[in-house]
This record gives sequence, C-alpha cells and structure tokens, in this order.
Amino acid sequence: MPARTTIAEIARSADVSVSTVSKVLNGHSDVAEDTRRRVQRLLDERGYRKRRAAHHRGHGALVDLVINNLDSAWGLEILTGVEEVAESAGLGLVVSAVHSRAALTRRWLDSLLARGSQGAILVLSDLDPGTREQLRRHGTPIVVIDGVSQPPPDVASVGATNFAGGYAATEHLIGLGHRRIGVIGGPEQLACTRARLAGYRAAHEAAGLPIPRGVLRYGNFYHDGGLRAAQSMLELDEPPTAIFAGSDMHAMGVYEAARQFGRHVPSELSVVGFDDLNFASWTAPALTTVRQPLHEMGATAARTLLRLIGGESLDSASLELATSLVVRDSTAPPESD
Amino acid sequence: MPARTTIAEIARSADVSVSTVSKVLNGHSDVAEDTRRRVQRLLDERGYRKRRAAHHRGHGALVDLVINNLDSAWGLEILTGVEEVAESAGLGLVVSAVHSRAALTRRWLDSLLARGSQGAILVLSDLDPGTREQLRRHGTPIVVIDGVSQPPPDVASVGATNFAGGYAATEHLIGLGHRRIGVIGGPEQLACTRARLAGYRAAHEAAGLPIPRGVLRYGNFYHDGGLRAAQSMLELDEPPTAIFAGSDMHAMGVYEAARQFGRHVPSELSVVGFDDLNFASWTAPALTTVRQPLHEMGATAARTLLRLIGGESLDSASLELATSLVVRDSTAPPESD
Repeated sequence: MPARTTIAEIARSADVSVSTVSKVLNGHSDVAEDTRRRVQRLLDERGYRKRRAAHHRGHGALVDLVINNLDSAWGLEILTGVEEVAESAGLGLVVSAVHSRAALTRRWLDSLLARGSQGAILVLSDLDPGTREQLRRHGTPIVVIDGVSQPPPDVASVGATNFAGGYAATEHLIGLGHRRIGVIGGPEQLACTRARLAGYRAAHEAAGLPIPRGVLRYGNFYHDGGLRAAQSMLELDEPPTAIFAGSDMHAMGVYEAARQFGRHVPSELSVVGFDDLNFASWTAPALTTVRQPLHEMGATAARTLLRLIGGESLDSASLELATSLVVRDSTAPPESD
Repeated sequence: MPARTTIAEIARSADVSVSTVSKVLNGHSDVAEDTRRRVQRLLDERGYRKRRAAHHRGHGALVDLVINNLDSAWGLEILTGVEEVAESAGLGLVVSAVHSRAALTRRWLDSLLARGSQGAILVLSDLDPGTREQLRRHGTPIVVIDGVSQPPPDVASVGATNFAGGYAATEHLIGLGHRRIGVIGGPEQLACTRARLAGYRAAHEAAGLPIPRGVLRYGNFYHDGGLRAAQSMLELDEPPTAIFAGSDMHAMGVYEAARQFGRHVPSELSVVGFDDLNFASWTAPALTTVRQPLHEMGATAARTLLRLIGGESLDSASLELATSLVVRDSTAPPESD
C-alpha cells in the first residue's frame, strides 16, 4: 500500500496550521473561503483519506444502517442480517429510518461523523453526490442495498436479481396460460422496479407474446398501493387475469381488491408477490411469490462494509444475490371461457 | 437539585488519586482489593453518579436498544417507535439483538460503556442485578419494555395491559358460548405470559365457569410454537372449541394445525391472537386479536429514557398502555351439536 498523505503534510504544503486543515476536513465554517479552497484542492490532489483513530476499532466502534422502509418486515429482514454480522465483528449498529431526505443528508451526516462511525449501509436511500463526497473525504466507506438508482461504479452495492425475479414470475403466469398479465411496480424511479419490469417484458418477448397495454401501475410497496393499483385494473373493460404484484404487501392489497370485486383467487385472478416475507405462507390462498434473500443481502452488505473498513479491495463493487420463484396456491390457469 | 458528589471529593475522602476512583468506577482490575472496596463504599454512600461528559449530549450522542425478538414484526413495531423519538431528540440509536445471554451481559456492557451510550432500552431481555448495578454506577439509565420478570420498583418499565388483554379475549369467547377454551402462553417465565393467563382465568371466574383442564400450552411466540401447541390440543379426546393463541404468529400456527386436522376456522375452531401485527387483517379468515400499541410502547419507553437522561424524576416507574380487542372473522359461536 502506498504511504498515506498525512494531515501535517497537507498543512505544510498549504502553509496553514494542522487545525485549519482539520476544520476544512470537518466542514467547519470558520475558515476563509480561499484558504478552504486551497486546502481542499490539496486534499483532493493527494487523495487524502482521514485516518481512522485506533480507538474506534476497539470496543465501542460503530457502523450505521440507514433504511427507508423500517416499517415493513422487508426492512426488518435486512436489518437482522446486518446486525448479525456487525455483532460478530464487535461493532455497534446505529439504525436510522429515513424520515425525510433533508434530514438524511445534513443532520445524519453530522451525527455520523461526530460519533466516528466506521462506515454506513444505505437501504433504498441514495446519497446525493455531495454527501457521498464528504464521506469519501472522511474515509467512511458506504455500501448500498437496493439503491434508488444504479449506484455509480465506485460505490459498493448489494441487491437481488430483480430482472430474473420479474422474468420468472411472468414466465410462470404465461406458462399457466395467462395472456393479459397486469403488473404493479414499486416507485417508478427505483432501479429494482425497472429491473423487475424489464424481466416482465423480456418474458413476454421470449414467449413471442405482445406486452399487454393499460395494465401497468406503480405502487409504494405497501398494502394500500397494491389495493389502489389492483382496483384500477379490475375496473377496466378488459381486466387482467393475473397480476404480478411487485411485493408481498402489494399482493395483500390485490387480494383485498379481488374480494371487493368478487373475484376468486386463484380461479378468477392469479397473484404473484415479490419478497417472500413470513406472512406469504400464512395468507389464504398461500401466496406464490419471488423470494429475495433479504437476511443474506443484509449480511453480505455488512461483510462488504467490513472489508472496505479494513482497507481491502473488492472483487466486484456490485453483487446481486439470486431470487427464486416459490409456487404456492395463488396462481392457476385462467378460466377457459 | 442537591449538589452532586464529585469524583475529586471521593478521591480526597478515600485518600487515593482521582485516577484510582475512575478505575474503580470503570471496573478496571488493577486496583488493590481493599482500596477498591473503600472507594466503592464511598461511592455508594454518597450516591455518586458518573457525570455525563458534555460532548456526549451533542451531535453523535447515542442510546441503546436491546431486543430479544428482532426477527419478528413485533420487535420491529417497537423499534420504529423508539427510533422516531430518538431521531427527534438528535440521538443515534444503537440496535442489538440478543444472540445469547452471556453475550448480552459482558460484551454488550463493555461496548455500551466504551461508546458512552446515554442510556438503554431493553425489550424482553432483563439484566442480571450485577449488570444493572454497573449501569447505575455509570449513571446510565435503563427502561425495560415487557420485562422477563416484574422489574424491580426502581427500574423504569413500559408494557401493555396484558391482564386486561387476556381477560378481554377470553370474555369474548365465553360470550360466544365457548366453554372449552384452549390457551397458548408465551414462554412460561415471562411476566406478560403470566399476566395474560391470569386474565384468561379471571374471565372464567367472573363468568362463574370452571377453568378447563388439559388445554394450557406454552409456546415461543412464533409460528412453530403455535402449530405444535395446537396440534397437541386438537388430538385430545375432548379438543377445545376455541383457542386464545397468545400471539398473532402463534395464531398462524393454530390456523395451520386446524387445516391439518380438517377443522374450519371459525365454524369448528375459533382463534384469537395477541398483538395485531399488520398481517392479522390479511389472513383468511382475518384474525380476531388483542391489539398492543407496540409503536407507542417504543415511543413511550424512549421518552421515559430521555427524561431519565435529563435527570428528571418519573411520576411512575411503571407504565402500562392499554390493549384493545379487535374482532374480525376468526371467532364464532361453537357448533351446537
């Protein structure tokens, strides 16, 4: 490993005190603007990374987990995977929910730096480039799980094979004979939503079938989003005979819409979820769904973060863990008439 | 507020250095045994409480949450309540699952003290008296949610009205005409289990009915525990006509056992859960259950902890939030034959 640039070397080169360099690093405002720029340019040129204090690696060391959907079993399974690995490594895990984007960027960053967190895992909650850059300067590595957008190539990320999952769910329904398959994505801007929809389309293309029109909706991954989307599809003149619901909670909303419209699942409406949360096997009918290894995704992200904290390089910045279709009782051939 | 004893006063009285007092406070071993005893006696007599360093109260300050059932939606709802309040107060929340009791007591305590955590909330995970005493000496307050045993009177605790919940569930089933009501508790040693069972018995007594024999089981609050308990009751010569399942996940296990034994819910077997987790309204039939305000219990515990951290006294060390019966479709009168 090349010798690291020290803060003292930066101070000498910039002809300022060590404490001034430190202030720039820590984003304090009481530094003259041209001094700040000169110091920052040197920090950037020399690729300075803040040295983690030795005492941070012992008892009391922390990593952060920021999670958008802390209020769903989905987020919980990721959390348990992260916690397990952090605990084994003797690291305390600071958990934050995203209450608003503004809160995440400014206040969270200040707190994270103040408590000397070793690194952070971000779930469904991307950082703006400025925040990412500040973390980079402080030498605080991050790992993204299910990034909002495709993460930049230099950001470590862990996800599931969403394209393959969307493909498998749709292929299963096509195989049963469905030709008008509705689909409910998550929020439209999410990378995982786009990958699942791409899988849905690719399965149609592979079977030589046209993509049905007018039966694509976007939801919020929660029960109410699935309910609204399914209601709007079931009231169509030509409603779908099957719905790929995009999440298990969406699927529960689809079940409720089916009850409201008097459509029996699966004989009059097939439903496929995504996630395989624990309740998927307890519902009636038990839910056919695409399983994501959420616990393992959390654990993998945590192990990746530990490697980055330890200064190791990664074989691949981006990892996708396999999804698998779990066929239960909510899918059947469409009615023949 | 009376002036606090300082560490320097203790050192003078004990005729030792400040650093020796500090070592005793922090549990270091390199202090002669009789010196340690002399210092400790003075610390106890003067009611010394470690002063929290001012910098801990600013950015980067932490509180701890230790949770036994991190792998269930139950724990998640508590977590979201705690997180919301901690976040509003600008405190980072360190979340630990209990992987083993030994790990909790020793390693967790070391880490908590090393990271200067302001206080801790313990969910279903009591501390042994020694650990509690060490936290007290360090001036680290704790709040217990659903303590394993009744917490000592000087420990702040938050729970739900488990007795009233068990009573309401049983009264509802008795009112429908059931006379042989099975009951599945959580782990036998838990205070909440005992309170719910006491409610079950009291409802029988209030109705002038004998407590049925041979239909009490203990579970683990998870699906498999409910399944096993229900199987063993349904294979009795005189099986119950209704089961108060003790948790919603237990109730899902009871549903599965009912399917295995070909007993329709609710016409051949009524089922009542406890918790009202989100899936309770998605199951078929939708589950009648006793709602616990889990999110609010977490938030209340966090607010209580903040008051203790701020040096305020509590009106009551123990708080019970109200449960309420939510009647859905899993309960009905027993078959008349």
